Formats: sequence, C-alpha cells, structure tokens
Amino acid sequence: MNLFANVNCILMLLPNFDQSMRQFYFTPGPSQLYFTVEEHIKSALKENIPSISHRSDSFKDIFRSTSLALRQLLNLPQNYHILFTASATEVWERCIQNMVQFESCHFVNGAFSKRFASISAHLGRKATSIEAPHGEVVDIKSVLIPESCEMIAMTQNETSTGAAHTLDDVNKIRKGFPDQILALDVVSCAPYVNIDYSMVDTAYFSVQKCFGLPAGLGVWIVNDRCINKSEGLLNAGLSVGSYHSLPELILKAEKHQTPETPNVLGIYLLGKVAEDMLNKGLEMIRRETDYKAAVLYNAIEQNPILQPFVKKSVNRSKTTLVAATTIDSNHIIEKLGEKSMIIGSGYGNYKKEHIRIANFPTHPKEHVEFIADELIKIRD
Amino acid sequence: MNLFANVNCILMLLPNFDQSMRQFYFTPGPSQLYFTVEEHIKSALKENIPSISHRSDSFKDIFRSTSLALRQLLNLPQNYHILFTASATEVWERCIQNMVQFESCHFVNGAFSKRFASISAHLGRKATSIEAPHGEVVDIKSVLIPESCEMIAMTQNETSTGAAHTLDDVNKIRKGFPDQILALDVVSCAPYVNIDYSMVDTAYFSVQKCFGLPAGLGVWIVNDRCINKSEGLLNAGLSVGSYHSLPELILKAEKHQTPETPNVLGIYLLGKVAEDMLNKGLEMIRRETDYKAAVLYNAIEQNPILQPFVKKSVNRSKTTLVAATTIDSNHIIEKLGEKSMIIGSGYGNYKKEHIRIANFPTHPKEHVEFIADELIKIRD
Repeated sequence: MNLFANVNCILMLLPNFDQSMRQFYFTPGPSQLYFTVEEHIKSALKENIPSISHRSDSFKDIFRSTSLALRQLLNLPQNYHILFTASATEVWERCIQNMVQFESCHFVNGAFSKRFASISAHLGRKATSIEAPHGEVVDIKSVLIPESCEMIAMTQNETSTGAAHTLDDVNKIRKGFPDQILALDVVSCAPYVNIDYSMVDTAYFSVQKCFGLPAGLGVWIVNDRCINKSEGLLNAGLSVGSYHSLPELILKAEKHQTPETPNVLGIYLLGKVAEDMLNKGLEMIRRETDYKAAVLYNAIEQNPILQPFVKKSVNRSKTTLVAATTIDSNHIIEKLGEKSMIIGSGYGNYKKEHIRIANFPTHPKEHVEFIADELIKIRD
Repeated sequence: MNLFANVNCILMLLPNFDQSMRQFYFTPGPSQLYFTVEEHIKSALKENIPSISHRSDSFKDIFRSTSLALRQLLNLPQNYHILFTASATEVWERCIQNMVQFESCHFVNGAFSKRFASISAHLGRKATSIEAPHGEVVDIKSVLIPESCEMIAMTQNETSTGAAHTLDDVNKIRKGFPDQILALDVVSCAPYVNIDYSMVDTAYFSVQKCFGLPAGLGVWIVNDRCINKSEGLLNAGLSVGSYHSLPELILKAEKHQTPETPNVLGIYLLGKVAEDMLNKGLEMIRRETDYKAAVLYNAIEQNPILQPFVKKSVNRSKTTLVAATTIDSNHIIEKLGEKSMIIGSGYGNYKKEHIRIANFPTHPKEHVEFIADELIKIRD
C-alpha cells in the first residue's frame, strides 16, 4: 500500500481529486454523496421535480419506481411494505406508537440502540434495555428477554461503536421469540449487509449513510404483522399517532403517495441511487466494501497507537469502522484533514478517544487505500 | 394587458422563458422554486453542505444564520424561538402533543384547518371544530369557543379554499381569549402577510409555498408560553412525544442543532432564500404580491365562466387564489398548460369545479399578466 505514499502521485490518479482542496467525507453519516447524486440533482432541477405536486401522477411514478428499486435491492419479500418518514429517528417513535402498547425490549450495543429505548420510555412505555459492554454486542446466549415484551429491537450495526450483530444472532432471536415484533436497525449497513428481511418484522434506515444522499429522509420497512398490531391497538381505542400512523402511511402508500408533502426530491434521488446500485451490482458493492474494510482494519492493527474498538473480529462493522486511539483523536483527524480526507471523531464520551471511518459504497478504494497509508504513518 | 396576447412576443420578454417547453409552476405548493434556489443548490454542492455533520460547527453556523434571517424577515419578538420539523403537518401533531392535554378548538375555513382538528382527535383529545361555510372564514363575532379549550387554532390563509382571515380577526380572538394558546397556520402566506407574531403563541409554515423551496422542511415558531405549557405537562408525568417534543427541540436549538439528523440542505437553502428576500426587501415583495393578485382577480372577474370562490373581497387570499369555474377546471388547466403555465386544480371535492393559482414571491409579474390574459380569453 505504500505505493501510494506520494500525495502528488495520488492526486493525479484519483477522479475529481484535484488540488483545489475539495474535501472527501468519510464521516459516518452525513457522509460523501454517492458519486452520481450531483448529476441526479441537476436532472431533477431540469425536470422540475421539486415543483411537482405530491398528488400528481408524476409523483406517484417517482414513489413507485423508488419503491421498486429498493424492493429489488433489498430483496424484500412480497408482504413487506416500504414507507417514507423524515428520519430513522422518526421511525423509532412510530415503531413504539404503532406496535408497543406496554413494553419493548432493546439490545443495546451503543448510543443509538440506547436512544431507541429512551424514546420508548418517553412515550410512556416500559423499555427494558439489555446492555452490552462498550465495544461489544449483547451475548444472545445469556440474555433474559421478558416474555411480556411486544417488540424486540436490535441494531445490526451500531454507528456509535462499530459493534455489529451477526445475522446469526438476529436469526436466533427470531427463532427464540416468534411472537414478538422483531425490529432491526439497519441505518448504517443497508444495503451492504445481506439481510433476509423475512426474519424480521420491521427494519429502517436513513439515506445519508450507505446510500450517500442528503439527509432528511427515512425508510421504514414493515410487514403485515406490524400493520395488524397497529390496527389492533387502534381498534382497541388507543392512539397510534396521527398523519404518520401505520394505517395512514399504508393507506397512502397503496396509492403511491404519502400523508403529508414529503421530501419529494429525496425520494426521487433515493430511487436513482438505488437503480445505480442495482446497475453496478450489489455483489460487486459488497466485495468492494469487504476489501476496503480489510485494508482499513489492517492499517489500524499495524499502528500501535490504534486498535479496533470492537475486540471480536466477527462483530466488527464493515461500514462504520471505529478505532480506539492512544492519542487525542483530533490529532489524527487533523492530519488526515490536511490531506482533504475528513474522518469522524468518536461518539459522545469517546469523542477524543476514538476515530470513526465510514466505508460506504461511494467511498472509492483508492481513497481508502490512501487513508490506510496515512493511518499507518501517524505517530503521537 | 392584452398587449401581451402574442405568445412569441412574450417568449422573448420573459427571463428563462424559452421555447424548449420549460414549464412554470403556479400550483399552490409545491410550486415554482424561488428564482435563486438553483444557484444556491450548486453552491451547496460545491461547499459539501450535504456531507457535513449535523453536530459540526459548520452546521451550527447554518442553523444560526437561517434562524437569524427568518427572525429578521418575520420580525419575530425576542422570546420567540424557531424550530425545524419535517413538515407543517408534523407541527400539527407536535402542537397537540405538547400543548393540549384535553381539548383544542379549531376555526375551520377549509380542508387543512379541518385536518388539524382531526389530528387532535387522532391523538385522543377533544377537538371542537367551528366550521365556516365553504369559501368563507368563521365569523368571529358569533363564535362560541369553549372556555375549557387549551388551544385555539386559526388558519390565516386556507390553501384549499383561498379563504383568509383578516389580521383583525386574529387580534380580536387574541384579546378575547388571552389564556388560551393561540396557534396560527401561516403555511401559504408567510412571509407575505405582515403578521404581528406577538399576538399569537405559535405559528408554522412549510418551505414549499411562499419560500419556493423543495418540500421536506417545516418551520415551527413558539414563544415561552408554549414551552411552559409543554414542560408543565411533562412535569405532570404526561408524554409530550419523544425526539421532537418541545423541550428536546428547544434544548438542541439553544445549541444551534436539531435532535435528529435534519434536512441540512433544506435548512441551508431556507436561510439563503430568506436572505435574498431581505436583500430584495419585504415591502417590495408585498407590493408586487398585491399587484399580481389584483391582476389575477381582475381577470377572474372579467370572464363569465370564472368567479372568485371567496365572495367577500376582504377574505380573498392574495397568495393562493381560488376561482370557481362553470366548466371543467381541467379544460382551463390544459389550456394554460399548453402555454407552459401549470396552475392547480380545486382541492378535494372541488377538483373539477375550481382552479387554484399560487401567487408566491418567485412568480414574476410578467408571467402573472400572461396568465391573466389567457384566463380572460378562455371560453367553454
């Protein structure tokens, strides 16, 4: 990899990487835009996409084709529905409102899975958290899940710690708890991780991670069990929210619409990027992601001031890599920043003790190799 | 006005109005983008705005400058706060969750004010609706408002019917009911209507109307009374929502942030357009809006197949003009569509019986005059 140690040499090799100090974002979301997004925005403006009515046939066509592309990309089973929200954070709230009357259970492998539990509590439900030590995932062999809980929430890939559940963990929980709604957070791993969505009832992500889109749109996948649960609560006279209750969202989605005026441009761009990914081929994207993750983890392990925060390699995220640092992470971030590569700091209390590097489909392997080379060289 | 009857002549006079069939949207939102938006999007892409972290100083600067520009443009009093949501529809839900424990009262002058009432009911509150006959506003002299209601909701400008309350109506309700939270819907009239925000407790709009921006962002203005009410409910052990509860939104806004990853690009663009409007001058925008509305209403009154749906001229919206038609509105919409001018159909059951024309700050007076000339000529 030290082939690329000479920066000027790299500058000529990389597409769009000129000396005008254009920066490249390896932050774990928002991150670098997918490399086709700028062109799609230009086309959208030319086609007046931001001006069309959200009740028009043109919008219904956009809704339909974005859903279709996502359905294909994620290989969704028939009875799974795609809904649009403002963010994945919103989905947390909607999940609880629509599918939990009394009690939810949360596997906590970082700050975001923890926040889902706190949202359940804010909404007046009993939220049981099963917390893993920092940098680990919950050991599913030893968990005690209350049978009374209506929903089990797992976060496949924790953006805060880089601790990722194996799909085997998810499948075992599914088999052990067939009666609970199983909710899977795939915010920073879809569509990279090859999830069998028939093993979960609901899943969700936001578009500013692996899809490389401007933030402001969440995608919520639900199966018919979720809808039945929500309708059951509604029929029992309980409130399941208003314009974004599951029944309202489904009613409109069946007509290829949303209850409110949505982020039309965001839905359009998501469809275009999903199509681009289909055209490139998800297998290729997955292979590239694996390669780039290997290059980065290798560099992290070679430098004595760095080590992967997640000890068990089977639980190390391939899309949001977290390394513990023996020096102030700011020093590393600045060093890479001088080379136009913007990586993330640690999350929350780990701000100065960790670096986080996104490895999304848009991040070219040449840039990743360059970052790896720099990481190896950094000393205190 | 018939000076402009020759289309080819007009084509040369109008900026950007070439023969390549570029369409101009006079639909009442989403509508034509504000004329500077395309350039701002290009700048945003160049500056990597969609890639920056929503916890970074760069984002805080954007939040701060957008708030500042809006505060100036709307002439907001000191103790009023600007918050960002995904839509005005979301604000309806948040208003009820945070400020109504038992009962809200809604002045209904069209479909959107009615929907606010239904959202309150969906959330389990008693929602009293005071409905005006279609095409009118509630006559405030004869209303019976339950003293027990905690919030009174008024819609200054009804996008569905074009029926607009006078500011005198709003002020009288304020004076008559000083103890209730007064919520004012300014979705399709801000910043055109010169509202004294100190007369209301909360107001809200979405950006795809007068601001001419891509949809996917709502702006929620609240004063300290709103926050106190929400905190009171929270302290009494009630749920006021989760990530977008007023206390959570305020806590983050004080740090120039949002609880979730927001529509960063949308917030950036809103700030830029608000600054553009300040530079142009709101007085100029208001004078132009008045002139364009007069031109359009004059045309509507001249053609026997059209008449303003709102009978009382004092209640006729200047920003969303609605005309009843004696012929199928589709015929009129198609005629104008052939000339690249896209106007809206009637709302809901009035789809075929009304046309709706947006008169937003971005709509140039030359286009409006052209539409007026065409409207006068249309026959069955």
